[in-house]
Amino acid sequence: MQNLTPPPSARTQVRRLPARGAYDRETVHAILDAAYLCHVGFTGPDGCPVVIPTAYGRKEEMLYLHGSAASHMLRTLAGEPIEACVTVTLLDGLVLARSMFHHSMNYRSVMIFGRARELATEGEKMEALEIISEQILKGRWQAARLPTAQELKATKVLALPLTEASAKIRTGPPKDEAEDYALPIWAGVVPVTATYGAAIADPVLPAAIAMPDHVKKLTGRGAR
Amino acid sequence: MQNLTPPPSARTQVRRLPARGAYDRETVHAILDAAYLCHVGFTGPDGCPVVIPTAYGRKEEMLYLHGSAASHMLRTLAGEPIEACVTVTLLDGLVLARSMFHHSMNYRSVMIFGRARELATEGEKMEALEIISEQILKGRWQAARLPTAQELKATKVLALPLTEASAKIRTGPPKDEAEDYALPIWAGVVPVTATYGAAIADPVLPAAIAMPDHVKKLTGRGAR
Repeated sequence: MQNLTPPPSARTQVRRLPARGAYDRETVHAILDAAYLCHVGFTGPDGCPVVIPTAYGRKEEMLYLHGSAASHMLRTLAGEPIEACVTVTLLDGLVLARSMFHHSMNYRSVMIFGRARELATEGEKMEALEIISEQILKGRWQAARLPTAQELKATKVLALPLTEASAKIRTGPPKDEAEDYALPIWAGVVPVTATYGAAIADPVLPAAIAMPDHVKKLTGRGAR
Repeated sequence: MQNLTPPPSARTQVRRLPARGAYDRETVHAILDAAYLCHVGFTGPDGCPVVIPTAYGRKEEMLYLHGSAASHMLRTLAGEPIEACVTVTLLDGLVLARSMFHHSMNYRSVMIFGRARELATEGEKMEALEIISEQILKGRWQAARLPTAQELKATKVLALPLTEASAKIRTGPPKDEAEDYALPIWAGVVPVTATYGAAIADPVLPAAIAMPDHVKKLTGRGAR
């Protein structure tokens, strides 16, 4: 991979195996848009790190996170803005080398450093929630009963700029030590894909309510 | 879910939606054993949180992490022991409610707080590397060329006790507001599964080297 775009800051630079790093918008956006689950890291009030899995949506140069106003993570991040690290990881395969030492994984990941801002107005919050919802399942926002003013009040929404974002990617076959290629050991890649199974209707759903297209078409599709 | 086992410490207690939390060994172990990818959070030397995806293995009450001795994460965690948070997340499905507000995900997750200890002896390191390898792909350790003394030296291995671990699980159909059940909106769950595709041999692998059983049997299987 070519690193034509330089890292936006020192801490954003991929230090371990820098050739796998990328900082251009296309690469960062493509990985973020292929997923909707991230792991948010922050330092809790007790000084200890905390890592929470949560959904997100991206639009332009902003990542949106949401959650209950009662959530520990949301309250911590939405207070006096503090540093966060948001990591998105897509596992693409197991890389089986001849030597244990060169075993690896194929993956696409993005790491974002920065401080999130809490969205204040109802309008901003609704827009961000729609972005998150559409990222997870296109078409769902229009089909569902939208948030009431009270529900919006019970929801915190954060916006994290993608200013300090880096991508890290590994693709392709294993790389072994030159002398190991002569060993009679099978080597290669086992691809990993996440897919949606057939949707299961809520047991109390009236039979007359048909499964909509935006749900039906998920079956067998890539899930992330 | 019944919380018969109390949380081992205050920070380990699931605060948001406590009914989803569990602290018994069986639940924590079962989730950890169903995955091999975790997100490790720690506070970097600059005081900023960092979240790194990496593989792990579990045996008894210990989680093992490994990586290059040159890795930022490994060097930071292996120095003067510092607090880490390791989170494992298995996404099981999208939960589509009638209201946007009650949309959710089905998942199994574990969060571990604590300080990791660097393994010092060759014997300890080899044992932990075998645990990690076997967790990712049973049978691979025996088939591969094992680490040399020099490769072991270039590898750091950390052990994190599971003393402060909690599980958080959501399963089942959506839960909507009572009045929303009358809405003509489809609701249910879309399952998500990660599976292995057919293995791809290294392009330079001699045709005479057949794919071993431990690789062949992965195809179509659950991948995590």
